[in-house]
Amino acid sequence: MSNEYIYDFPFTKKEYMKRIVETQDSMKKQGIDVLVVSDPANMCYLTGYDAWSFYVPQAIIVFQNEEYPFWIGRECDASGASMTTILPVDHIFGYPEDYVQTPVKHPYSYIGRWLMKMIPYGSVIGTEMDSYYFSAASQFALENSCKGMLFSDSTNLVNWVKIIKSETEIGYIREAAQIVEYAMGVAIDTIRPGIRQNDVVAEIYKAQIHGTETFGGDYTSIVPMIPTGKGSSAPHLTWSDALFKEGEGSFIEIAGARRHYHCPLARTIYLGTPPKRMQELAEAMVEGVDEVLRKIKPGKTGEEIEEVWSGIIKQWGFEKHSRLGYSFGLNFPPDWGEHTISIRQGDTHPLLPNMTFHIMPGIWLDDWGVEISEPIVITDTGAQRLTNFTRKLIVK
Amino acid sequence: MSNEYIYDFPFTKKEYMKRIVETQDSMKKQGIDVLVVSDPANMCYLTGYDAWSFYVPQAIIVFQNEEYPFWIGRECDASGASMTTILPVDHIFGYPEDYVQTPVKHPYSYIGRWLMKMIPYGSVIGTEMDSYYFSAASQFALENSCKGMLFSDSTNLVNWVKIIKSETEIGYIREAAQIVEYAMGVAIDTIRPGIRQNDVVAEIYKAQIHGTETFGGDYTSIVPMIPTGKGSSAPHLTWSDALFKEGEGSFIEIAGARRHYHCPLARTIYLGTPPKRMQELAEAMVEGVDEVLRKIKPGKTGEEIEEVWSGIIKQWGFEKHSRLGYSFGLNFPPDWGEHTISIRQGDTHPLLPNMTFHIMPGIWLDDWGVEISEPIVITDTGAQRLTNFTRKLIVK
Repeated sequence: MSNEYIYDFPFTKKEYMKRIVETQDSMKKQGIDVLVVSDPANMCYLTGYDAWSFYVPQAIIVFQNEEYPFWIGRECDASGASMTTILPVDHIFGYPEDYVQTPVKHPYSYIGRWLMKMIPYGSVIGTEMDSYYFSAASQFALENSCKGMLFSDSTNLVNWVKIIKSETEIGYIREAAQIVEYAMGVAIDTIRPGIRQNDVVAEIYKAQIHGTETFGGDYTSIVPMIPTGKGSSAPHLTWSDALFKEGEGSFIEIAGARRHYHCPLARTIYLGTPPKRMQELAEAMVEGVDEVLRKIKPGKTGEEIEEVWSGIIKQWGFEKHSRLGYSFGLNFPPDWGEHTISIRQGDTHPLLPNMTFHIMPGIWLDDWGVEISEPIVITDTGAQRLTNFTRKLIVK
Repeated sequence: MSNEYIYDFPFTKKEYMKRIVETQDSMKKQGIDVLVVSDPANMCYLTGYDAWSFYVPQAIIVFQNEEYPFWIGRECDASGASMTTILPVDHIFGYPEDYVQTPVKHPYSYIGRWLMKMIPYGSVIGTEMDSYYFSAASQFALENSCKGMLFSDSTNLVNWVKIIKSETEIGYIREAAQIVEYAMGVAIDTIRPGIRQNDVVAEIYKAQIHGTETFGGDYTSIVPMIPTGKGSSAPHLTWSDALFKEGEGSFIEIAGARRHYHCPLARTIYLGTPPKRMQELAEAMVEGVDEVLRKIKPGKTGEEIEEVWSGIIKQWGFEKHSRLGYSFGLNFPPDWGEHTISIRQGDTHPLLPNMTFHIMPGIWLDDWGVEISEPIVITDTGAQRLTNFTRKLIVK
């Protein structure tokens, strides 16, 4: 391993160090001595680590009283860690290959044995118990190899540090917004009766990754979702090679991503003359979101905003059971949501400047659905739209 | 929910029912009364379920003594389950929206309470404790709501049922092979000094999803990996918007996917005149894999095959610490490997007809790496290559 490789870091070292300190502050408040960060987005947030290696156990280990965290992962990924993280080389090490995908040796046993050498008995180890790539077996292997230690659930600890974005982060999200506007335009232009669904998605992907002439796009945490016809009564179907047909609606839920910062967007398109009730639902949504955008002020809570929305659509005779929106930002598959604040009943967290939300009014009825969304950033005075894409049912 | 939607199932109902019975047989042997299947690939394998909804907890629940399993997931995804699975509508149900991504209510508490009504005290519940989307918190929530039940680790139980493919499955893998050959050709044609990495990846994606004129492509479980120059000394870096340069090597590791069945392929390309040692490494790899292909016979074990390979490359002065290959097939992100048989030291499982392996000789040295792989299917007499793409260091 050497550090001569010139890697284009998305942030200054200072910004990473600030994130680490904020994480350590939060650990202190929660009584956590060591934090095992396994969520790839959180690993990237704290150190820059960026590789598709999260299909094997790996972690950034943050100690309360140590300036730099440690990267531990598969041996062959250590050189990627030395290239893409701000960590000193002696803070990066790999577990041997015979720990990879075998029922005999678990990587978290290795990590646990290493931790035992680093911290005194009775230390509190925080793990992200409900994050995607931290399995039940990982927790058990860690517990079994760390006898005499205490464990605490630190799910979303780093997510809450992440929720207020720096200007540089907002800058990447705005670039992602340019990408998603472009990709949505390509999708709308490409869809027509007789074209295969997959060929529309192929063009969307090309646009997402091409990005702009100035900057390129990254992979998004969720693949393009484009449920069509009766399929649009279900929110998370992907695509097939069936043909788009006259007399059918589709919604397109995609994102742009730039240095793993997302900007999601959803629109609905109808080929032909849409049913009157679909048109009404679309109008209700736009009116509801308009009112939401007017009413958002820093300090308002998720549930207060949800009430504004549900009040409007009730007047149109609609209701939505799933949440109206969620915080988004830096993420890796399978979700671009941040798992912190949701715009829904019961969420009493205040919205604050430089938080970013996807206002996502999807309603799925028996035979079709409509989604017309709006990604926003909270400002000092209200909410600003991140994209400027026609906000209505698109009829073609 | 209604069943009038005409969904194009990839397999006959008979094939799904056979898989369910084989899973129940395996459960019986392992003393499992109820199996909680949370791996999206295994959910799809047993019932057809196909949606990007695995970012929230969801499961197929297989009972030892009940013909059809149950689908449990988020309420708004139940209609997708009714469209894409062979399950009767009364075997599909959703948990309420207030269980979604909140620290207060965990979906597995809901699932656990439901299980308590279905099975007697003392029943053995198997969970896939080391699968990607089954978190430690999921296991704890299930255990806490299922007092009086016993738990067993059933990681990879269904993966082992999956490992021998039916002719229909091999058919999809062959279609995926056509897609990856096409996409690799596009990649090789597109890479040239001065083009941005992301623009090459954009064309790869377009090719992967377009597929062929006859059938379309699906998303692959891993994004295109295309580490370049010094970056190619690390195996799992993705791409940036930097330019390809004369005098640099890159490897391209991609797959084609058809109905979520994969065919992976890796090639290395050098722009200019490659270093002599890189050329030698490539030749050693091709010779090693040639010999492997000659030596594979049904009944040979993973470690016997690895020995053939390491014997050859040792003669060239190379060694590889990571495994030479792995079983692949039906999968969802983040991995197209099946987590069953690996071609490596210590793996004593026999290779059998209709298993599929990615022979993946990647070697990463200090400043560059080479990958030239070969996806194969085991036949009654040996191994058959699934693609027919030039197998050498590609120089341009």
